[in-house]
Formats: sequence, structure tokens, C-alpha cells
Amino acid sequence: MFKLTVKIIDVETGAMPVISLNEQFAKKNDVHKMDRILVKNVKGKTLVAAVDTSETMIESHEVGVFEDVWKKLELKEGDTVELTPIGKPLSTKFIRKKMDNEELFRDEIHQIIKDIVEDRLTDVEMAAFVSASYMAGLSLQETEYLTKSIVETGGRLNLKKKLILDKHCIGGVPGNRTTMLIVPTITSLGLTMPKTSSRAITSPAGTADTMEALANVSFSIEELTTIVNKVGGCIVWGGAINLAAADDKLIRVRHPLALDPEGMMLASIMAKKMAVGATHIIFDLPIGEESKLRYLGEARHLEREFKKLAERFKMNVDTVITDGNEPIGWGIGPNLEARDVLWVLRNDKRGPMDLRAKATMLTGKLLELCGKAREGDGIAMAENQIKKGNSYRQMQRIIEAQGGDPNIKPEDLPLGEYTVDYVAEKKGKIVTLSNSAIAKIARAAGSPVDKEAGILLSKRYDQPVKIGEKIFTVYSRSERNIDRVMQLINELNPIVIK
Amino acid sequence: MFKLTVKIIDVETGAMPVISLNEQFAKKNDVHKMDRILVKNVKGKTLVAAVDTSETMIESHEVGVFEDVWKKLELKEGDTVELTPIGKPLSTKFIRKKMDNEELFRDEIHQIIKDIVEDRLTDVEMAAFVSASYMAGLSLQETEYLTKSIVETGGRLNLKKKLILDKHCIGGVPGNRTTMLIVPTITSLGLTMPKTSSRAITSPAGTADTMEALANVSFSIEELTTIVNKVGGCIVWGGAINLAAADDKLIRVRHPLALDPEGMMLASIMAKKMAVGATHIIFDLPIGEESKLRYLGEARHLEREFKKLAERFKMNVDTVITDGNEPIGWGIGPNLEARDVLWVLRNDKRGPMDLRAKATMLTGKLLELCGKAREGDGIAMAENQIKKGNSYRQMQRIIEAQGGDPNIKPEDLPLGEYTVDYVAEKKGKIVTLSNSAIAKIARAAGSPVDKEAGILLSKRYDQPVKIGEKIFTVYSRSERNIDRVMQLINELNPIVIK
Repeated sequence: MFKLTVKIIDVETGAMPVISLNEQFAKKNDVHKMDRILVKNVKGKTLVAAVDTSETMIESHEVGVFEDVWKKLELKEGDTVELTPIGKPLSTKFIRKKMDNEELFRDEIHQIIKDIVEDRLTDVEMAAFVSASYMAGLSLQETEYLTKSIVETGGRLNLKKKLILDKHCIGGVPGNRTTMLIVPTITSLGLTMPKTSSRAITSPAGTADTMEALANVSFSIEELTTIVNKVGGCIVWGGAINLAAADDKLIRVRHPLALDPEGMMLASIMAKKMAVGATHIIFDLPIGEESKLRYLGEARHLEREFKKLAERFKMNVDTVITDGNEPIGWGIGPNLEARDVLWVLRNDKRGPMDLRAKATMLTGKLLELCGKAREGDGIAMAENQIKKGNSYRQMQRIIEAQGGDPNIKPEDLPLGEYTVDYVAEKKGKIVTLSNSAIAKIARAAGSPVDKEAGILLSKRYDQPVKIGEKIFTVYSRSERNIDRVMQLINELNPIVIK
Repeated sequence: MFKLTVKIIDVETGAMPVISLNEQFAKKNDVHKMDRILVKNVKGKTLVAAVDTSETMIESHEVGVFEDVWKKLELKEGDTVELTPIGKPLSTKFIRKKMDNEELFRDEIHQIIKDIVEDRLTDVEMAAFVSASYMAGLSLQETEYLTKSIVETGGRLNLKKKLILDKHCIGGVPGNRTTMLIVPTITSLGLTMPKTSSRAITSPAGTADTMEALANVSFSIEELTTIVNKVGGCIVWGGAINLAAADDKLIRVRHPLALDPEGMMLASIMAKKMAVGATHIIFDLPIGEESKLRYLGEARHLEREFKKLAERFKMNVDTVITDGNEPIGWGIGPNLEARDVLWVLRNDKRGPMDLRAKATMLTGKLLELCGKAREGDGIAMAENQIKKGNSYRQMQRIIEAQGGDPNIKPEDLPLGEYTVDYVAEKKGKIVTLSNSAIAKIARAAGSPVDKEAGILLSKRYDQPVKIGEKIFTVYSRSERNIDRVMQLINELNPIVIK
């Protein structure tokens, strides 16, 4: 045990709490980088931190204290703290076990997840867990345990309904805003659908980003419960309610490693569905050259895994394999996509037919899955709700419940004042319309942070074009972004005509 | 590209350089934690840093700059820097390839090692590389490439000798100071032996710690060359000359993960031998219940691996499997071990016979391996050098060349004033004398930082003892350490009598 003087360091780590010791002092006392140390303030309040060492910045009698530590222990410059080296948490042994290709038990996985949520593992240890899960794979049994552990350590929505519907898409298709049609249609029929969505990570807009063009999307669990009890459904940002806290922490190392171990991906998705109490879920699995799923075999495999896992949780799931080769709808970017959604709901002829058809198909399947529609009648029931304006009126209620303007018109949604038109340089047919290039260009234009930025398509894959005919327009609020857009258009060749 | 104002952060990372951006700013600009960013000062000097984000400590117009960055770019508070996000280094692709269980090519391994040495990989990426090397294993070919890459990116000793001898022990046996007998004996015969050793990590003393009781052990490559050219050999700390810089960086993540992938261990050892230009090496592989090698099969396997690898580097190696079940010599701890060594060299009857026998056996094997002695004559040649005092006089020359007092007497080496005697509580035979318990107690006493701390054995394994007879004495300079020693003695049961 050492008594040292606090030196405040104005940096937060956002991960496991860290303190910094003088390097020579640490060496003499047999303390190493990334060792754990128990930090105790004068009032006896304690916290476990990871050790970092400093050659020159911290003197022997000092301990450098990062924000996460000084905030929690209420420390100020010059305070005295007691430090006691302690062992690694048990979960590091279980991570090692996984690295030795052994199957983990329920309690072992639970301990790992608990330690991750409570910031007791370092990034290096989490990286080892992710690497081991990727290389050794997670069995169905392990994936089940992982899912339950994520649910138990995260937030939960308790709606007390017998039927709770949900939908999930294994991302990768720009403009794929079916959720914003499915939720109002399903809930217009008196069913419950508390939909949480993600924001864009590498795409131009996530459903949460697009819905945000029309209403608020960040709510607490209590607020969400009120909204769903009132209007039967919602379209909100899942990140705000921390449904899968462990998952958010793991993403921190999975993203830089670009590792997405299948078991972790399945557990992450299923945990979020369990956390809202979903009983019936439809999965959209788009396949495309540039989608997350590239081959039919991959989609079929995932389909089986979702079904096996759902069976263990007594959830009812159905899956639909869809075409992920080109964007859906005309607009890409929050406001442009929200316009498409509103036009479809208002039965306006400007509404994209592909978006409408995909949404009614998924809605129909979900209605059949939960027994609301008879086999084969689902799509017609969904289509009918839209045609009669029920879906639109229900969307207005949801928008209002989420604090938006229910009377907003598609035309009211502004688009960036700076534009670039992409026109055909030759006559022919569009043989390539690259999802990833379109996504990058829309992001360069400012999407999703700039709601007015994005791409409006005038032509689609396989359509004939004449020389000089417009294929798409890029919108942005920033002139500087337009330079980058032009550069990307030249570099990426988003369109090929033959 | 962004222009931001420098905010100095008085913390060094000792790893990949880090800068901190405001979290909202980073999000808007599509920059994520652990992304790479090129930092450019007003003079156009650049450096690649990893991105960290801060919610409250860094404002949108600021960039928090850690010591490694502001020192290299000569930045001060309020300076303006240009930041440009850049991609990950190519080596992250090769790490991923290894995670996919594919064999890596020469250039791929070299790129990984180069990026590690030049601090271009984050700890999380290095953790993935170590995990993958552990789980997928490294082939002999990969180990060869890894060894060469470590040598090429580290320091080298260029002695211009035809024969350069070396010795390596796969650790784990307290008091095993044969190096300090082998080097003077070998070099007293006119041979060259530039021996670099490690300091203790978890043991009570490494050879470098014990030699430091008699002379300096930290030298630059130039100083080392002078010493070896003058007296034919040295016993120094390898860490000071950075022979395997990549290895030192990897240790940073291997230690907290407690992962020692075999290929990395082999490469680390062989690289250090190659870096001093060794042509003939003897390996000591002690087997014991608490040693690094626990079974004969493990030692035999390692023996084969060392020989196969040495063949690829055209090095001549021999291996000896030894008993690692009990400590060697009477003393454990720097001064206590140095006394044992000097007594053996001076042919004093207090010199432990087991240490002398093991050292002459290893020396003999090495003399035979390099052709200095005929098969079967090596041990006698070594024994003769010690008996005639040649080894001792040569050790005096080495001590002097390394800045120590050549006339130091074993009795001059002080021992800690606080002592604890461990006495037999019953009559019988010592059936257990635990290496790991002895090591922990000696470390608790202060060893190796306190040179005077350690354990002096009076009895050995398998010896009969009477009630009240002393088995060992613990020495320390600190009374507080003694409390901890007493506690450990009770907890660990270092001695079992039956």
C-alpha cells in the first residue's frame, strides 16, 4: 500500500479508469503497466483503476489521476490517496480459457460481460476477448449466454403486452427506410411495436438519423414507455436508452479492429430485441456485392442461426432475403429519405414504389407471423392500411408523441443550397450504381450530421440514359463539402453506363 | 483537414502517440476513437497519432496533445496544427490475415514488426496480433521471418570475430547464476562471449541484477564493443542496448495478457543471439513442477524447435535439460547470489557445489560445441580454469572493464539488517522446497531492487532436519518488508517436512 499525492490530469479515458505512477517508483514497487490498483480517498471511498506509468510527468510521491477517477472519488490537486495493488478480475482467466479454444460456461460469460459493463477490463483485455471470439468462434450455447448477459446488464423496456413486434435489418443498403413505414402500419392495426434503431456509423443515414428529421429520437426508458403506451409504437435511437451497454463497450475495440465475430453480432442484435420484450421479429437480410451479406449462402446461414437462437428464447422469427445491390427509394440522406417516407405514407405519386413494396412485404410477413393476418393476406392488409391513410395518420401520432410536428409536409424539409448534378457522359444503360460510392459521396456532402445533405437519384440501375441526362443530384449546406464531393465522384466512379 | 488550437496535456503515453479531439467534433467529422490522424505543425513537420475523444475536457476548436506529440512537433499551448485523417497502416490487414488462420509472408511480418517498433500500431492492434499468434500459432517459417525482422529493426553488436559464444536459460530457477561462471571461464580461454542478460520480471533476481552487485550493467552498443574487444566478454543488461526493440514493445501487451506465444518466445530469444552475432549457443532447459518447462516432453519439443530454427540461421546450438525443482546455490537475491558466484570462482569451500557443477557442465558443452575441447574433455577443461584461478582473474578483468571494483570480496557484499529465520517445526526430511514460494518471499523482502535483500538457504531438498534447526534466513533492509515476509511464509508453506 502506498500513500501518494494527487496530481489532477484533465483528460477522461471513457473506458477503464486510469491512474499514472512514476515509472521508477512503479518498478521499485513491482507494479506494471495495466496492473490493477485500488484507489482509496480519505473518506474510504474506493475505485479500481488500471496503472499507467510516466517517466517524467509524475514524480515519485505523486499519482496522476484522470477525470474518471477524480470525479468519482471527488479528488482535488494535492489530496492524499491510498493505493493498493490488486489482482486481475477473474474474467481475464475466462478470456484466456476462450483463447485456449475451450467453451465457456454461463457464469464465465456473465462475469466477462459484467466486468466489461462495469469498466473493469482494459481495452487490451477486451481486444483479446473479441479476437478469441472471432478466431475460436462462439457456439450457439455461448451465444445464448452472451445474449442473456448483455440483456441482464443493460436497460430494459417493460411493456406488459402479450404481443410485441419488432424488425431488424442486417444493414448496408442506402435509403432502406422501411422501418418508418412498417411501424406506423403495424401500430395502426392496434399492435405494439417499440422500435429502436441505430444511427449511421459508416452509412449516410441510419433510421434514427432520418426519423430525427421529423421528431426527437432520444428518450429515456420511462419516456419511451409513456410514448409506446400512448400510441402503440415508436421509432427512436437505441443508443439513448443503453439497451445493450456491454455491446456499446465492446464496439469500442471491435470497430478499430474491424472485427465482427458472428456470435457477438447475433447476441448484440438478439439482446436488443429481448430488452424491449419482442415476441415476434422479422429479419431483413439484403444480399449485394457491397452489402454486409455478399452471398446467398451467408444469408441462409444467418437465417438458420437467428431461428435457432430465437427458439432458445421462445421468440418467433421470420426472415426475408432481399436484394441489396442498389439503393432503395430516390433520396439518400436524412431529409431526402424522410421525404420519400412521407410521400409513400401520403400516397403521393412521388413516393418511391420500391420502398413501398419492400415495406408492405415485410409488414405483411410480420402480420402473418404474429397471427394478425392469415397466411398470404399480410401484404394486402399492409397495403390497405397505407392506401386508406391509416398508416399516415398513425405516423402523425407517433411524430407528435415524439415531440415533432405531425403536419410537416415532405416539401417542407429543406435541402442543401449547394448542389452538383451528375449527368450521363454517354448513351446506354446503367450497369453499375455503386452503393458504397453513393454512401461515401453522401457522407462527404455532410450526411447524416447535415440533415439537408445527401443524394437524390433520378435514374436507377438497369435504366437507359441519354447523353447529358441527369442521373443524380448531390445536396449540401457547405460549399467546401462540394469540393470533396467532386473529388470523390472522380475517384469512385459511382455510375457505369454500357 | 482541420485546423485546431493546441492544448498541451502533461501526460506521455509511451506507446503510439495520441491526440484528443472533442467528442462531438469528432463525430461530426466522422473521426473515431483509435483512428489515425496526421498532425502537422506550422513548419510542415508531421507525425501520425491515434485519436482519442473527450466529452468535456477538449473544446471543438481544440486538440489535446500528449507529450509524445508535443515534444516531437515542438508544440506549445495555443499553437495551430493541421490534422488530416488517414487510413490504418497496411500491417493491420496482415494481423487480420493471421486472425483468419493464414500463414504470413516475410514482407507482411516485417511490416508488422516495423510498425510496432515505430509506434504505428495501437495497443489494441498489438493485442490482436499477440492473440492471433497465440491462437493460430506461428509456423517455423513465420518464426524465422519474425526473428529476422526483430533483428533488422533493433540494435546490433558487430564484433568481427569468427567464433562468438552465447548461452541462454529458459528461466524459472532461483539462484541459477551460471552465466557469471561460464562467461569468465570461456573468455579466460581466449574465446569471445558478449553475454546480455535480463533483469528479474517475476523472479527475485535476474543475472543483470546480480552482476549489478559487482559492476555496471547498462552500456551503449559502442561501450559494449570496447569492453568485449578489451576483455573478450561481458555480463550486461540486454535492455539497455535495445537489441530487440520490437520485442520490448510486444511485451507491453503480452505481460498484461499473460500470453507467451511459442513462436514469439523463440523469435525473441534467437533475435537477441543473432543481434550479438552468436555462432555457438548452449541452451539450458530446466524442468520442474514450478518452472516454465514442467514436463520432459515440453523441453524436448523446445529443444527441437531451437535446433530447427538455429539451422536456418546457420548457428550451432546444443541443449541441456536440467533439474529445475529446487533453487541453485545457497543465496537468492543479488548480493547473496553474487557471494555464491565469487566463492566458487575463488575456490572457497563456501561456494555452492551445485552451482559450480552446473556451470562447468554447461561451459564444457559449449567448449565442445565450438571445437575448443574434444568431445568428453569440455567439463575437465572448464573445471581446470576455475581451479587454477584463471576464471576468477578473468572475472576481475570483466568487473573492472564494466566499472566495478575487481578486488571486491564476497564478504564485502552487505546483507539487509532485518532478518527472519525459518526453522524446522518437526524432525524429518525436506520433501518440498518451493521455488515459487521462495521467489515470492525474496521479492517481498525487497529483492531485486534492494540488493541486500533475499534468502540464504541452510538446507536443501531431500536433506534431514531436526526440530528447531534453521532451514533458511530472510534478509531485508526494510522492517516493513519483514511483516509482509512473515505473512507470506504463513500463507505459502515454502517448506514441507515428512
